[in-house]
Amino acid sequence: MPPINRCVPALRRLRLANSNLQQSSHLRLQAARSAAQPLQRRWQHAEATTSAQQFGNQDPPPSRSGLSQKKIKTTAESYPDIKRDPRFKEITKDDVDFFRDVLGADNAIIDGLSQDASSDLEGYNADWMRKYKGQTRLVLKPASTDQVSKILKYCNDNLIAVNPQGGNTGLVGGSVPVFDEIVINLGRMNKIRSFDDVSGILVADAGTILEEADNHLAEHGHIFPLDLAAKGTCQIGGNVATNAGGLRLLRYGSLHGNVLGLEAVLPDGTIVDDLGKLRKNNTGYDLKQLFIGGEGTIGIITGVSIICPQRSPAVNVAYFGLSSYEKVQEAFKEAKKHLQEILSAFELMDGGSQQIYKRAAGAKLPLENDYPFYCLVETSGSNTDHDSEKLNAFLEHVMGEGIVEDGVVAENETQLQNLWMNREGISESSQHFGGVYKYDLSIPLPELYSIVEECRQRFLDNGLMSLDDESKPVLDVIGYGHMGDQNLHLNVCVRRYDKEVEKFIEPWVYEWIQKRSGSISAEHGLGLAKKNYIGCSRSENMIKLMGQIKKLYDPNGIMNPYKYI
Amino acid sequence: MPPINRCVPALRRLRLANSNLQQSSHLRLQAARSAAQPLQRRWQHAEATTSAQQFGNQDPPPSRSGLSQKKIKTTAESYPDIKRDPRFKEITKDDVDFFRDVLGADNAIIDGLSQDASSDLEGYNADWMRKYKGQTRLVLKPASTDQVSKILKYCNDNLIAVNPQGGNTGLVGGSVPVFDEIVINLGRMNKIRSFDDVSGILVADAGTILEEADNHLAEHGHIFPLDLAAKGTCQIGGNVATNAGGLRLLRYGSLHGNVLGLEAVLPDGTIVDDLGKLRKNNTGYDLKQLFIGGEGTIGIITGVSIICPQRSPAVNVAYFGLSSYEKVQEAFKEAKKHLQEILSAFELMDGGSQQIYKRAAGAKLPLENDYPFYCLVETSGSNTDHDSEKLNAFLEHVMGEGIVEDGVVAENETQLQNLWMNREGISESSQHFGGVYKYDLSIPLPELYSIVEECRQRFLDNGLMSLDDESKPVLDVIGYGHMGDQNLHLNVCVRRYDKEVEKFIEPWVYEWIQKRSGSISAEHGLGLAKKNYIGCSRSENMIKLMGQIKKLYDPNGIMNPYKYI
Repeated sequence: MPPINRCVPALRRLRLANSNLQQSSHLRLQAARSAAQPLQRRWQHAEATTSAQQFGNQDPPPSRSGLSQKKIKTTAESYPDIKRDPRFKEITKDDVDFFRDVLGADNAIIDGLSQDASSDLEGYNADWMRKYKGQTRLVLKPASTDQVSKILKYCNDNLIAVNPQGGNTGLVGGSVPVFDEIVINLGRMNKIRSFDDVSGILVADAGTILEEADNHLAEHGHIFPLDLAAKGTCQIGGNVATNAGGLRLLRYGSLHGNVLGLEAVLPDGTIVDDLGKLRKNNTGYDLKQLFIGGEGTIGIITGVSIICPQRSPAVNVAYFGLSSYEKVQEAFKEAKKHLQEILSAFELMDGGSQQIYKRAAGAKLPLENDYPFYCLVETSGSNTDHDSEKLNAFLEHVMGEGIVEDGVVAENETQLQNLWMNREGISESSQHFGGVYKYDLSIPLPELYSIVEECRQRFLDNGLMSLDDESKPVLDVIGYGHMGDQNLHLNVCVRRYDKEVEKFIEPWVYEWIQKRSGSISAEHGLGLAKKNYIGCSRSENMIKLMGQIKKLYDPNGIMNPYKYI
Repeated sequence: MPPINRCVPALRRLRLANSNLQQSSHLRLQAARSAAQPLQRRWQHAEATTSAQQFGNQDPPPSRSGLSQKKIKTTAESYPDIKRDPRFKEITKDDVDFFRDVLGADNAIIDGLSQDASSDLEGYNADWMRKYKGQTRLVLKPASTDQVSKILKYCNDNLIAVNPQGGNTGLVGGSVPVFDEIVINLGRMNKIRSFDDVSGILVADAGTILEEADNHLAEHGHIFPLDLAAKGTCQIGGNVATNAGGLRLLRYGSLHGNVLGLEAVLPDGTIVDDLGKLRKNNTGYDLKQLFIGGEGTIGIITGVSIICPQRSPAVNVAYFGLSSYEKVQEAFKEAKKHLQEILSAFELMDGGSQQIYKRAAGAKLPLENDYPFYCLVETSGSNTDHDSEKLNAFLEHVMGEGIVEDGVVAENETQLQNLWMNREGISESSQHFGGVYKYDLSIPLPELYSIVEECRQRFLDNGLMSLDDESKPVLDVIGYGHMGDQNLHLNVCVRRYDKEVEKFIEPWVYEWIQKRSGSISAEHGLGLAKKNYIGCSRSENMIKLMGQIKKLYDPNGIMNPYKYI
C-alpha cells in the first residue's frame, strides 16, 4: 500500500484536472457538435418521417442525415435464403374491409390507395438503421386491447402473418416485416392508465412513449426504472417485448423484476389479463415473464404495470484512466463496496474507443495522458453532500491504492453531460471512418475484455488492421459497454465493409462467446439478425423447450415470422 | 404546516424515548423470553428430528415444544374430498431396487425397513406446522442433477407420483406428500458451486441452506437478496420454487429479477440447463421464470445462479406511532422520499397487533402512549453517519408535520433487535390465546387496511368478539405486514377454533380480495391450502393458460399432485 502522502497529490491532481475540465469541456462540446452533429445523450427522432414509429434500442442511433440518403435493400434481397412462407395468406379486399370495420378506415393504412401511400408505409417497413426493409401493404393501428384481440383472431383464423410494432427503434430487425406480414402498430394505445405515488406503481398502454411515461413520473418524484438513448421514440410495450436493458439496469434491475403485470393478446384472440398492481402475488405460474423478451412472437403486449423507484435528486459522475483490465475489475469492485446503494452506472471504455471518439468528434479527452482503459462512474442518491463524500472517499481510495491512474469529477450538469459524451459518443464515432461491425455481448467479467484483444490480434496477424495505413480495411477493434452488467460492445471499426474482414469475425465471435457461456445478445434481442446464432448462447434442450412454447401459443406461426427462434 | 418550534420538542421526545429504550428494552427482552420462548428473529430448527428437511416459509414458525406433542392428522383425513389418483403406481420392490441402484442404498429411505423407519419418515411426511401429513413410504436423496434426471424419468415412465422437497418450511402444505407420493429431497445437493466477488454472482446447488449461502456471501462482503425467518433451515431451491418474498424484497426486489439462471429437471428427465451467470441475456424466452414460483409442479430445481448485492455495514431501525391509516400511507410516502436508496423495510403493525404481542409476551411497548397504528422503518446503507442523518431528517419531517405522533430510534444492535421483535413477535403472539386464522394477502395500498376493519366489524356485529369476555370465540382481528410490499397479514386471533367463526371469514375474505384485484397469497404460495381459491386472484383465462403449461411440462401429472392449480 502506498504511503498516505501519495494519495493526497493524486487527489489534488484529480481536483486540478477537475477544474480544468470546466474550461475545456465547453470548447470540446463545440468541437464535438460541429464534427458529429447528433452526439446528444438523448436522441430526438426529429428528422424521421413523422409517421415512423420506432422500437426499443439501447445505443444512440447514427446520424440520419447521411443514412437517410442510402437506398434500403429489402430484407428479401439481403437475405435471399429466407423465403416467404407460402402458407400465409395474401391480403384481399375482404380482409381490409374486416379490419376497417373493426378499426375505422383511417386506422387501416393500405399501400397504393393514396398518392403517396408507398412512402406512407416506408416508415413502418424500414427500421431506423435502414438495414432491414419489409414489404407490408397494410398497417393496422388499433386503439384498444379489444381491437387487438379481434384483429389477431381474424389473422390467426385466416393464416395472415403479423408483425407487432412499437416505436421501431430496435437494432436486430425485429420490428419490421420481412415480406408482406401486416404491421400492427401500437402507437395509438398511448394512455397512462394510472399511477399511485405511494406504491410507485404505474399502469400504462403498451404504446406509451418511454419518455412520456418518465415525464409523467417525474412530476410525481418518480423515475421509470429503464433509460435508453431512444427514449423519445421507443414505446414501453416494445421495451418490455425486447426486455430492454439500458442505462439503469445496474441500479434498478431488469424488467423481469420490475414489471408487475402485463396485458397481452394471444394469436387466437385470448386476452392475457395479468395486469396486476401487486408487488407480490404467488398464485400460479408467472406467465407474463414469457412475453418479457418474447419479441412479439407469442402475442402482443397491450398494457404494462411496473414498479417505479423514487427519482434521485443528486447525480455525480467521475471519469478516470487505468493501466490494465485487472485494475478496471478492481475499480469496479471498490466502486460497489464504497458506493453501494448510490452506484447507478459503471461504464468501461478502452483506450481505442476514446481515441476513435477523439478523432471522430475532434474532442479533447478529459485527462491529459492516455491510458489503455477508462471508466465512467455515476452515482444517484437522495443527498448531494452524502453522495459527494462517498464518491470522494472512493476516488481517494482507488487513487491512493494505485488502482486508478488519474481522474476527473463533474462539478456541474454541463460537465456531467460532457463526461457522459465520452462514453455515449463512441457508438456514433465508431462508424465515422467508413463503417463498423457491432456485437452486443455478455461475458463473465474476468474474460470480458479478452475478446477485444484476441479479435484485434487476428486482424494484426493477418495484416488487415492499421490506425494510419489507409490501405488496410480495419482501423481498430474497440471495446466498451456496461461493465456493471457484464455487457460489452465489441466494435470492429472499418474503412469500408469487406468480406475479407467479415470472415475473420463470424462465426469466430459467436464461437468464442459459446466457449465462455456468454450471450451473443446481451440486450438487443434476436430479431432477424441473430436468429441463426441462438445455439451459441442456448443449449439444444433450451432451444427445443423454447420451440414448444412458441408452438403452444402460436401454433400457426403467424406472429413475427422468420425471426427469433 | 406546524411552526418549526413544534418540530423540535417532537424530536426531543423522540430522543428522550430513545434513551429510555436502552434501559427498558433489556428488561422487555427478558420478559419476552420467559413468556414466549421462541421469539428469536432467526428460527433455528434445533429440536426437530435431525432427518427433517424444511422448506421456505416467511414467518417465524411457532414453538415446536408445544406443537410437537400434537397428534398430526393425515392430510387424507383432514381433506376427505381429495382422493388418491388411481393412475399412480404403488411402489414395488423393483422400483426400490432401481432407485437404490441409482442413488446407493442409504439414499433411498424406505418405511418399515428399519426398526424406527416410521419415525424416520415422519420428518419428510409432516410439515413444520404439523398441519399436513402425507403417507410416503419412500424418500430419495439424490446427490446430483444427473441422479434427479434418472429418478424423474423412471417415475414418469412408470407413473409414480413425486413430491419435491427442500427444507420443508412452507406454510401451505406444498412440501409434503398428500398420499404415497415419493419424496425427492434435495438436502444432499448442498454445495456452493462458485461465487465471483466482482460481479456478485453466486451459483449453488438447490439444496444449499439459505443461511449457509448468506454466510458464504458475508465472508465476501455480499448478502443474499432474500431474508426470511426460516433461513437456518430453508433451502435456496425451495425459496426459488416458492418465489419467497421475505424481508428484503422492498430493497432488493423479487427473485424474478435476481435469479439469473436455473438448472432444473423436467419429469421426462430433460435437464433445463439454463444456469447462466449473466446479468443480461436476450436470446429467447426466459423459461426459468416458470420454475420461479412453480412450486415443484413442472420440474425440480437443482441449481440456482443469483446476483447478490454488497452487504450494508450500516443498519438503523426506527419505530413510531401514528393516528390513522392515512397517516401510515403518508409516512410511507415520506420514507420513500427521504430515505430512498437506504430504505430496506417499512413494516406496519396495527394497535391490536401490538396489544396482542404485549399481552402474549408480557412485553412493554417502546412508546408510552397507545396508538392505532405503528410502523417500523429500517435503513441499510454503506455509511452510518449519512444514514443516521437521513433517518433523522425523515423523522424530524414526519414528526414536525404531524404525520407521526411519537417514535424511538435504536441506538445499538440490542435495541435494534428489540424493536424488530415488536414486529416479528406478532406471528407467534397471535396464536398465544388459543389459535389463529391466518391470511397472507396482497392488496393495493389505499385499501390495504380496510379488510382488517371490515373483518373486525363482522365479528363485533355478530357478537363473536371481545378482548375481555372469555365466552366469545374471537379475541381480536389484527393486521400487520410488509407495508412496503403491499403485503398484509390478516390474523383472526381466537380463543378456540370454531366453525361459527370460520363461516364469517371464508369465503368472505377471498371474495373481498377478488373485488380489489388483490392476491390471496402474496408470498406463501398455493400449495394444498389455497389451491381451490386461485380463481379469486386469477382470471379464468389465466388459469386455463396455467393449465396448458402444467400439461406441457408434466403431461402425466406426476409432479407434486393434488396441489397448486
